[in-house]
Amino acid sequence: MARAAISAVTGEVSDSSDRMLQILSESSRLFATKGYDGTSMRDIAEACGISKSLLYHHFTDKDEIYARIALGSTQRLFEFVQDRLPENATPPERVRAFMVATGDYFQRHRSNWIASTAAFWSDPELRRHKERMMWRDRYEGLLRQLIQDAIASGDFRPVDVPLTGRLVLSSLNWMHRWYKPDKGLSPGQIADSYFDLIFNGLRGR
Amino acid sequence: MARAAISAVTGEVSDSSDRMLQILSESSRLFATKGYDGTSMRDIAEACGISKSLLYHHFTDKDEIYARIALGSTQRLFEFVQDRLPENATPPERVRAFMVATGDYFQRHRSNWIASTAAFWSDPELRRHKERMMWRDRYEGLLRQLIQDAIASGDFRPVDVPLTGRLVLSSLNWMHRWYKPDKGLSPGQIADSYFDLIFNGLRGR
Repeated sequence: MARAAISAVTGEVSDSSDRMLQILSESSRLFATKGYDGTSMRDIAEACGISKSLLYHHFTDKDEIYARIALGSTQRLFEFVQDRLPENATPPERVRAFMVATGDYFQRHRSNWIASTAAFWSDPELRRHKERMMWRDRYEGLLRQLIQDAIASGDFRPVDVPLTGRLVLSSLNWMHRWYKPDKGLSPGQIADSYFDLIFNGLRGR
Repeated sequence: MARAAISAVTGEVSDSSDRMLQILSESSRLFATKGYDGTSMRDIAEACGISKSLLYHHFTDKDEIYARIALGSTQRLFEFVQDRLPENATPPERVRAFMVATGDYFQRHRSNWIASTAAFWSDPELRRHKERMMWRDRYEGLLRQLIQDAIASGDFRPVDVPLTGRLVLSSLNWMHRWYKPDKGLSPGQIADSYFDLIFNGLRGR
């Protein structure tokens, strides 16, 4: 499970040594807890139990490590979610599946998610930022399409599609600020409960 | 309006000179756009059009400026929202008022909000952090009470109160990540639309 999470960080298990995976995993954890600015190459080397020179043998600098973590992370979220949409399900069930899959992805790659989110809106590398925004737009676009489908089928009332998409994504994206592992519901279960609240509403009578 | 926003930053207009207010306002803006780490005392002095020595005459260091911005910001949000809950309204209307008031507060104090949020979860000063968490808990507790009241009156179905509160707060808290001023709905209107979506649900038939 930990191994699966790591392989998703690189996306190229077969090309990467165990050492590379360990460095990326420990770096994600450090960036998530101490922030990018608060993490030094020395911290990363110590967390991996290796010398700084061995660390520099693998990566030129901290930014290169960060780039490996961040690049493709939104693309993989998009693909992970898309792969988990049931073909033969009602439109609302597909919206639910989108939400639960995002929760599951968050749970599997929490450190990577937090590290990537922290720098998402202020990524200094323009090309990298643009690529992530493109995948972010595809991810959000997929959700809007699912909502649109549910309206077209009559399963949803004719709500504002972008605003409804924002509400759904806000509920999922804010989880990284308060969710504590090993306590209560899993992120996938929380996403499932959010779907129930939003779909059925709060109205009692 | 700008002046009102500034006075809310300090909470003590009568004790503070215009210069102090200007420094706090410009610092909020810089922290919100460049981050705390990315903002220097030189940047703040330049933004205010004053010398560094005059800046140091008012504040010992950057942390003291930050403390003035962050301290009390959650308390003021709580009080702002509490003051705007209509006495003679149905429980659902009070939940709606809570959401709209939070949106209005966000709009009035956006820079301060963003600057405070960025450091909320990693405030190095433990006492300050505890005080903010206490007000945060009161703010969230107020919302849970409103939800509980709406369930008790039968206006809401018997939903999970903490989870419903999380959903509401997520929708409002995530706004600082995507909201662009002077484009489309105001934050208060967005909060109002979110209430409609969550209260009435998406179900079409």
